Formats: sequence, structure tokens, C-alpha cells
Amino acid sequence: MAHTPDPLLFIRSLWRIITRKPQVPPSLKDNALLNVIMRRRSVRTYRSDDIPEDVFCAILEAGRVAPSTVNLQSWSFAVFTAASWRATFDHPIPFKAPRAVIILGDTHRDRLALGEETIAHSPLVEYTIAVMNASLATMAMNLTAEALGVSSVMLSETGQSGLLDAEYLCAKLHLPPGVFPLMTIVFGYAAGAYPPMPPRLPMETVSFDGATGYREPAPGVLDDWLAQMIAGYKASHLTSSFQAQLHLYQSKIGKAEADLRRMVFGESSTGKGGA
Amino acid sequence: MAHTPDPLLFIRSLWRIITRKPQVPPSLKDNALLNVIMRRRSVRTYRSDDIPEDVFCAILEAGRVAPSTVNLQSWSFAVFTAASWRATFDHPIPFKAPRAVIILGDTHRDRLALGEETIAHSPLVEYTIAVMNASLATMAMNLTAEALGVSSVMLSETGQSGLLDAEYLCAKLHLPPGVFPLMTIVFGYAAGAYPPMPPRLPMETVSFDGATGYREPAPGVLDDWLAQMIAGYKASHLTSSFQAQLHLYQSKIGKAEADLRRMVFGESSTGKGGA
Repeated sequence: MAHTPDPLLFIRSLWRIITRKPQVPPSLKDNALLNVIMRRRSVRTYRSDDIPEDVFCAILEAGRVAPSTVNLQSWSFAVFTAASWRATFDHPIPFKAPRAVIILGDTHRDRLALGEETIAHSPLVEYTIAVMNASLATMAMNLTAEALGVSSVMLSETGQSGLLDAEYLCAKLHLPPGVFPLMTIVFGYAAGAYPPMPPRLPMETVSFDGATGYREPAPGVLDDWLAQMIAGYKASHLTSSFQAQLHLYQSKIGKAEADLRRMVFGESSTGKGGA
Repeated sequence: MAHTPDPLLFIRSLWRIITRKPQVPPSLKDNALLNVIMRRRSVRTYRSDDIPEDVFCAILEAGRVAPSTVNLQSWSFAVFTAASWRATFDHPIPFKAPRAVIILGDTHRDRLALGEETIAHSPLVEYTIAVMNASLATMAMNLTAEALGVSSVMLSETGQSGLLDAEYLCAKLHLPPGVFPLMTIVFGYAAGAYPPMPPRLPMETVSFDGATGYREPAPGVLDDWLAQMIAGYKASHLTSSFQAQLHLYQSKIGKAEADLRRMVFGESSTGKGGA
């Protein structure tokens, strides 16, 4: 990882973050929904006003009707107001947002619905499907919120809000085995203008022609991205750094790994053996 | 599982599928963007016309700019036309759609970007984050497609297109270790009207007040859902059944579980031990 501060690289990286936008073909520039989707950002400063009930219900409804593998809907949503979050966790919703939903992958209900005997013992496949489905529902809520003028951010760590604190959240929410905390999405009205888009990798780095097979990143692309991440983080978190944030993740990840394995594969086997 | 056919239950279940719609508060009924999101369906019959390049690029772009944990973008998209899919797999894209993208969770690129030494050995956490992020990107593509009049369906099994055929897809796409096939999303223009929404569970079943904790489904709700699934499947797949579809999954799931464990935890350890 690049650690040496290089002022020129820093400024160039910042400039690229500020000037880079989603690339929409000119022919589609007038599509209102496309513009809403492309304008979406992860928002971390909120006004104090609450979200009206009808608007918040519509956001949750988008999660409820999201698509899922075999229509199993292997998700559950733990829904909070500012008051109920504070009563549960003894601190405000991260970024003092007025509403939050903790997204859970739910294989427990799948098994109740289909019958234990219907489902083979395939914990990693079941878990993967639940994570996929719950994430689809989360993104549907995120974009529905944007369509209704509500901003949001998905959290996996901030304020013990996601899978890095899975055990803590299981206890707080009284989750039965087979229900996995994945992330929290907080909702509110953005205070001020949307922040610039964090540096995205070029399309040719994240996609490839399926017929020719996987393509390794071109030389320099990942270093360039990392320099932008470091510069952007420094510019928006003057007292912290991208490296410090990564270090925080690393300090929690060992326990999270052990907890997740126990939750997915069961207390005694801890993921031992094949299928 | 309910196996005995009950004609009255069948008809009642079908009626509920046909008449049930996403529940949008009356105050929001005129929101055009919300209507596009709520009208979305998984479409399985396509016209033969291809998708214009600008439209398809905008759909991919929505995936590229989707949010992700620490902005890691731990996804890769294997992009296909009808011709390149056929050249790769010797059969058409499922449902003869004109375009397809195989969605991959990509922890390989994360490690290249951050440096192997930066990341603790935490394969299940890394895998979970990649599955989450890749699924967020998929849903962003799905809704962007809808916004542009393009329909889609996400597949995890049909035509060896997802995680149940992970090993097959790894070989076909020449994926390095740490890149996981999750699902295929196929895109095209719907032939005819959208199908009814498959039976969704009630909001009170999939959500709960976070302050009071997880809530088990009310009695009868899951049986009711299962009866609707069976009826709906029978009505739309005259020669098959929901049970037959589940059986097909079950027949593949054992191998998929072993393959996934090997891919996530490594050849030798097969998921053994804690973190």
C-alpha cells in the first residue's frame, strides 16, 4: 500500500474524484429515473426532520417485493425509529439519521416454510442465497428512497451495525439460528449537497467479455484507485485516514470470522468437512 | 410440505396471486419513478430485438457506480451478447434473451488492490462482503434496466447460470481463486404483458420492530405462501411443479456446497477450523 504522502498525487487524485461522474450516454440524459439512480450517493449528514410514514412504508415495500432466488424472500428487516434505536443501542442512529433498518439474511424462515426435511444440509449455499437476496432487497430500498427524495447509506461496521458485529447484533435483536445480521441502512433527508462520488474503478476493470474470460486489471489501475481512496478519505475525514479505517476493520475481522463461521456452520463443527 | 392437491385451495391461491399488488400509499400513487420500481417483475419471455448499445452501457454503468463496503467494488461482470453466450456455452441465453451478465463476487481484486498483507485471513467475511456488494450492483442494474424499458430476470440455476454451478462457471470463465459466480442476469424486451407478482410474504412476516426483537411468523402464513407458490408454479409451468423445481435444486446442492466450500476456504482446508 502507498503510505508516502505525495502532494501532487494527492491533488491530482482529489481532482479526479471531484470531476468524475457516472457516464450516461448523451442519448439518455433526459431519463428522469436514470438520473435519480445515477445521482444516488451514500449520504452521511442528515437534517433532523423525520420521514413521513407513507414514504417510509413505500421504501420498506420495495424491499418486500424485491426479487429473490425461487421467490424465497430469505430476508428480514429490523425496523427502527430514532427513539427505538436509541432505546435498543443506547446511542443515536449513525449520522443521526431519523430511521434505520438492519438487514438480516434469513434462512430460518426458509426452513420453516419448506420444512426441514426438504432442505439438504448445505449451510454455505443457503447462507449465500440469503446474503444475495437480502442485499437485492437493500438496494431496492436504497433506490426507492432516492426516488422519493430520501437519502441513505449502507453500513457494515459504523456503530456496530453490520456483519463485523454479527454476534452483538444477534444478541440485541434476539435472532434465532439461521438469521444473520448483514448491514444497516439508515434513511433521512440529506443536509446540504450530495458529496462527490467515491472513486470507482473503470468499466474495463470491473467487466470483461464473457467469451474471452476473466481479465486481470491493467497495470497501475489499482494503485491509481488506492491513491484516490486515500486522498478522498483524507479530504473528508481530516482527523482520520483510509489506512486507519482499514486498520479498524482488520482489528474486528478475526472475531467476526469466527462468529460468522459458528453461525453459518453450527456451534460444534465450525465449518469442518465437505458437504 | 403440502402435497395433496386441493382444488379450492388451488383456485383461492391463484386468485390471491393474480389480485395481489405492491402496496403503495395513495399519497404516492402518482410518483412515476416509484411506479417503475413497483411494476418491476422477473420476465421470462423476450422479444428477439437486441438492446441498443447506449441503453446496455447505461445498465452496466449502474452496476459500476453501485455502493459497496468501503467502496471496494468487490464485483466483476462477465458480459455477453446472444452470440458470445452461445459460443461459450453451446446454447442460447436462458429464455432467448439478447444480453446477459454473469455476476461474480470478486475478492481477488480486493487483495490485489489493498495488498495481501493488508487483509487478515478471513475468507468467510471477505466472501460475504463480496456477495453483498455484487448483489447490490445486480439490483441496481435490474432497476436501471426497468427505468430504460428493459426487462430482466436473475438466475441462480436455470441453464447452469449461477452459484449452483459455480465450478462449471469458474472453468468456463477462467476465474482465478477468489472470484465466485453468483448469478446471471439476462436482459431483453418483454414479449407481452408482465406476469403477476409471485406471492410475497406479508410485511409483518418479513419485518419486525427492532426494539422488541425477532418475531416468528404468525401461524398459517407460511403454509398459505407455500400453497400460493405451488398453485402459481402449476399455472405457469403446466408440465412441472414447484416441488419438482425444488427437487432439481436439491439434486445439485450437495455438489455446489462442496465446491463453494473449497472455493471460499481453499483446496486443502475445506473450511476447517475457526479464524
